[in-house]
Amino acid sequence: MGGLLGVAVLGAGHMGADHIRRLDRVTGGARVAAVADPDLARAEAAVAGIDGASSHAEVAAALDAPGVEAVLIASPGPAHEAALHEAFARGLPVLCEKPLVPDAEGALRVVEAEVRFGRRLVQVGFMRRYDAEYLRLKSLLDEGALGRPLMLHCVHRNVSSPPGFTSAMLVDSSVSHEIDAARWLLGQEPVAVSVLRPGSTGRAPEGLLDPQFVLLETDGGVLVDVEIFVNTGFGYQVRCEAVCEGGSARIGEEHGMTVTAPGRESREVPQDYLVRFADAYDRELRAWVEACRAGRVTGPSAWDGYASSATAEAGVRAQRTGTRTPVDLAPRPALYA
Amino acid sequence: MGGLLGVAVLGAGHMGADHIRRLDRVTGGARVAAVADPDLARAEAAVAGIDGASSHAEVAAALDAPGVEAVLIASPGPAHEAALHEAFARGLPVLCEKPLVPDAEGALRVVEAEVRFGRRLVQVGFMRRYDAEYLRLKSLLDEGALGRPLMLHCVHRNVSSPPGFTSAMLVDSSVSHEIDAARWLLGQEPVAVSVLRPGSTGRAPEGLLDPQFVLLETDGGVLVDVEIFVNTGFGYQVRCEAVCEGGSARIGEEHGMTVTAPGRESREVPQDYLVRFADAYDRELRAWVEACRAGRVTGPSAWDGYASSATAEAGVRAQRTGTRTPVDLAPRPALYA
Amino acid sequence: MGGLLGVAVLGAGHMGADHIRRLDRVTGGARVAAVADPDLARAEAAVAGIDGASSHAEVAAALDAPGVEAVLIASPGPAHEAALHEAFARGLPVLCEKPLVPDAEGALRVVEAEVRFGRRLVQVGFMRRYDAEYLRLKSLLDEGALGRPLMLHCVHRNVSSPPGFTSAMLVDSSVSHEIDAARWLLGQEPVAVSVLRPGSTGRAPEGLLDPQFVLLETDGGVLVDVEIFVNTGFGYQVRCEAVCEGGSARIGEEHGMTVTAPGRESREVPQDYLVRFADAYDRELRAWVEACRAGRVTGPSAWDGYASSATAEAGVRAQRTGTRTPVDLAPRPALYA
Amino acid sequence: MGGLLGVAVLGAGHMGADHIRRLDRVTGGARVAAVADPDLARAEAAVAGIDGASSHAEVAAALDAPGVEAVLIASPGPAHEAALHEAFARGLPVLCEKPLVPDAEGALRVVEAEVRFGRRLVQVGFMRRYDAEYLRLKSLLDEGALGRPLMLHCVHRNVSSPPGFTSAMLVDSSVSHEIDAARWLLGQEPVAVSVLRPGSTGRAPEGLLDPQFVLLETDGGVLVDVEIFVNTGFGYQVRCEAVCEGGSARIGEEHGMTVTAPGRESREVPQDYLVRFADAYDRELRAWVEACRAGRVTGPSAWDGYASSATAEAGVRAQRTGTRTPVDLAPRPALYA
Repeated sequence: MGGLLGVAVLGAGHMGADHIRRLDRVTGGARVAAVADPDLARAEAAVAGIDGASSHAEVAAALDAPGVEAVLIASPGPAHEAALHEAFARGLPVLCEKPLVPDAEGALRVVEAEVRFGRRLVQVGFMRRYDAEYLRLKSLLDEGALGRPLMLHCVHRNVSSPPGFTSAMLVDSSVSHEIDAARWLLGQEPVAVSVLRPGSTGRAPEGLLDPQFVLLETDGGVLVDVEIFVNTGFGYQVRCEAVCEGGSARIGEEHGMTVTAPGRESREVPQDYLVRFADAYDRELRAWVEACRAGRVTGPSAWDGYASSATAEAGVRAQRTGTRTPVDLAPRPALYA
Repeated sequence: MGGLLGVAVLGAGHMGADHIRRLDRVTGGARVAAVADPDLARAEAAVAGIDGASSHAEVAAALDAPGVEAVLIASPGPAHEAALHEAFARGLPVLCEKPLVPDAEGALRVVEAEVRFGRRLVQVGFMRRYDAEYLRLKSLLDEGALGRPLMLHCVHRNVSSPPGFTSAMLVDSSVSHEIDAARWLLGQEPVAVSVLRPGSTGRAPEGLLDPQFVLLETDGGVLVDVEIFVNTGFGYQVRCEAVCEGGSARIGEEHGMTVTAPGRESREVPQDYLVRFADAYDRELRAWVEACRAGRVTGPSAWDGYASSATAEAGVRAQRTGTRTPVDLAPRPALYA
Repeated sequence: MGGLLGVAVLGAGHMGADHIRRLDRVTGGARVAAVADPDLARAEAAVAGIDGASSHAEVAAALDAPGVEAVLIASPGPAHEAALHEAFARGLPVLCEKPLVPDAEGALRVVEAEVRFGRRLVQVGFMRRYDAEYLRLKSLLDEGALGRPLMLHCVHRNVSSPPGFTSAMLVDSSVSHEIDAARWLLGQEPVAVSVLRPGSTGRAPEGLLDPQFVLLETDGGVLVDVEIFVNTGFGYQVRCEAVCEGGSARIGEEHGMTVTAPGRESREVPQDYLVRFADAYDRELRAWVEACRAGRVTGPSAWDGYASSATAEAGVRAQRTGTRTPVDLAPRPALYA
Repeated sequence: MGGLLGVAVLGAGHMGADHIRRLDRVTGGARVAAVADPDLARAEAAVAGIDGASSHAEVAAALDAPGVEAVLIASPGPAHEAALHEAFARGLPVLCEKPLVPDAEGALRVVEAEVRFGRRLVQVGFMRRYDAEYLRLKSLLDEGALGRPLMLHCVHRNVSSPPGFTSAMLVDSSVSHEIDAARWLLGQEPVAVSVLRPGSTGRAPEGLLDPQFVLLETDGGVLVDVEIFVNTGFGYQVRCEAVCEGGSARIGEEHGMTVTAPGRESREVPQDYLVRFADAYDRELRAWVEACRAGRVTGPSAWDGYASSATAEAGVRAQRTGTRTPVDLAPRPALYA
């Protein structure tokens, strides 16, 4: 029991509350030790009924609360950088929801701080790396049975976009998942990005360019194309096909129960990423807890967070200018070799 | 052009008209030379617009019409036996729609007559043997890659039964397709049959026991189970899974276009056997015409027609008595070895 | 933390060790407080590295160990009845792996003891009720959108049978899962059972009749057919299709990644039930822990364990005699209404 | 019988021989009246055994042979233009294999000649328009149930490229099928084309850039992306997904028999377009024969042939320059309104 990892959760909104529930009821090996939210009432509500969990308005107070051994950052993106530096100051391991930091410059400062600290503290919340299908695809590519990858065809669809969603966010918030997944699956870095814009759907709010079509080129010569379509109205779908020299593999097709009703056979399409990736979130958190208890840090690194932000920024420029835009990454520190 | 096979079609109802259309417009190598139907007006309508085709009320007149070289029997089952003997008397090759003859005794008389004639004249219209998926399954089983077959699981569903359809007809009309398919796929003869009756659907007409579940045992130890359900309301489905010592293979799943609409991915379910088996009917007729032109008779034989009728008769007894009923076939003549 | 449920695990074999791992590392809300195994060394090995967990050779000692609030029985079936009565004597809630008790008579004694105790203590480990696809099928049937169920077609295949597996065990160990699933999905009790035996596979050990085909009839007129085939050599497959008056629904088809290699598209077939039902085991245990902490007992009851055993016993008689065999259940106590 | 359409087939190579077989044995309503091939021996071999068919070395001689009522052009692309003008001079209806004429300029001369003739004579051999799945997709889009199309994702894969296949031919020979299919499905014309080149497969002959990724933009704002990959080594695959405002629909997935063997479930991938599109070729030819006999011309027009060539030419320029290239079509004559 002494081994239960005490976690401070920063942010008690939608995602934070979901992680609190997971730490408390789903995942073994950890407990919620503290919750911080600028809205103190929300923090208090989040810890109700959880033995030994304190609530706070300030990040620092939560990190200093008794029993805190690790930090889970689920606050809005702009609050991440300061929270990460606070965690580094205390040497606490961190699970940081994506984006690591919204802008590439800030993300690079985090990378540099972690390099100064001297060992990894950060796992970034790219949860697709913990999805059973993505894991299977990664391992198939690594085995090399299909030969060298040449193309990735990706589809990323939502039912509808949340209020305030902008055309840039299709690239820097949504496609950032594909950017990380492509980097991870291929073990390659992006060198250029282009964005095409077909006609927009009538379902999109006024002014939102939706769908868009993003093309990434990697330093290994792989072409990654991504349909991003956030107001489909019909479902949450994430697909990926890796086309290789000796075969192809695809993931993300609907499955589960098949129903035959008059005139058709059908399968359900999930409506929400929390449904589609529920197991990935569980597995991500469990992996983090296990690593923390063993004194290790694994999974997507601060460098991955930075590279994703830098590529997304180039994508937003490509979107604005309508031209192919190079991606210039800083040199990769040895810590992330 | 001299090579176009002149065909007399007996019966100008639903099935006969469909075959006339196929001979005239779809299949090469043959032409409609004569049509007979007791309802002469129907025969006349059927030949309208077809050069060189005569119409008749009597079978004999049609068979004796100029240019007739082969006979296609598409009249009601009770008329088959007399028509077959007429064709035999003239030495004409015959494509006879199933059932060869509705009762096993009459079917055996046809077998004996063909044996006396000394060579095969009859191809029975078990068109599943010409379906691309069944052919693929047959060839896979024959190759032996999956090892010895142990079970066949079959499903046979219709949208609704035609007027006058009886509980016995679920076995002797509908399941007769599975009886023939199982005999053909396995190269084995049935030795016993049992029929179970779950609760009947409210969609079935008063008094019709629908669905039923038929179990065939073969002389090779294979168990064949058949769901027959003729008032599903939802579609025409024919599936077959062969379970073997080293693997299984299944055919008959829905395919074609996949549509994603709000909340589901779906594929169309065909509503009609003429849709599902359209290609099989084309291929069956083409194979018959090619064989006739080459002076050969191939495909399902009169013996197959007899064995199917005899098994179906045992099935109807099993259905009535609720017990496992042996199937006793006559000795197989050398002509059908 | 005070709320962590202290669990005594009885049996530290394959299944017991898996549950210990789950309680310790996967599921939140519980901890391993004690482990009992007649082989004390095995019990000791099982608790190594788990804070606060004691090891015992005797069931009673484990149940009386400090902090024990609930019991998980994962010992061999013949040991279940005594362990259940020990747990009842202490008023402890129990998760009992299937079978509740191997023979129907013993299972009925457990039912009677729980009735005397006056409230439910037992959840039986029919984990399929916690599988996502089965849950979806259950909820679809309960919604009634497909109308009244008429048939269930079930397939249950293993790669190979463990040493000592007998022909009777195909029915009373393997098919018992389908017996419970059918009772649960339909809310109906079995009234008769028949067993057919196709030719056996050459892969089966000498003397084992494998595959077999089991037919259950329910008091609601539903026919349930089950292919049980435990030496397929090719995979672990559990499928179920519910055929209803207004449509059908099927679960258990392969999914996940599709790989295209020369000449074929393929999907992996799982080789093991612990892979196929991993999530169901997790969900089952989590549901039990949550219920225990809330002072409730839910899930499959001792009555379900008894009904399954009684049906399986009738199945074994049917297998031996080759005839349709009635299932006679004791009257159902009000506690399980 | 007088109604059998007499067809002159130009070209007796691979494709010509296949059409001769189809006219003679598969399709009703037509007969081979003459065959021309510069290699007279090949023409003679092609008509062997066909009653009433003459063989010729010269196109004009074949068109003037007795009984010729229509022309099927299956000679190499560079020979098409002259043959079309010969056919026009005689007022004969033509089925011309793609490309209509390899260069857009020559294709436009054919269009102008047909316009001068005053009515349509030409059907171009874009056989995908006769494939059952494409037809279903076309009709779904036309019904409007899925709303306005926004994107088409296309995949076009071959096992290996024939000798002499060049990088330009990936666009102007292979992708020309997608160009026509997109124009037909959408009822829109291309306005720009871009070509991206991922790393090439080691399976491609020296110097061949394979795969390539082609992006078409239409005057209706639809973005069409095409993976063209002609040396996959693994199969012939043609897929198309139409993404619309209200849903998506996709065609071209593998189907047919599912085989379960140790560790996997698989379906066959066709190796050849003549297998995948066999029915489409049959249906195309049947539609042309029926139209000719009825004095009509339907199907893909000379304009479609021209527009496809002009778009492909822009694509080859885009490929060479690496930039987005406009497609400038001549004004569309009223004949093709």
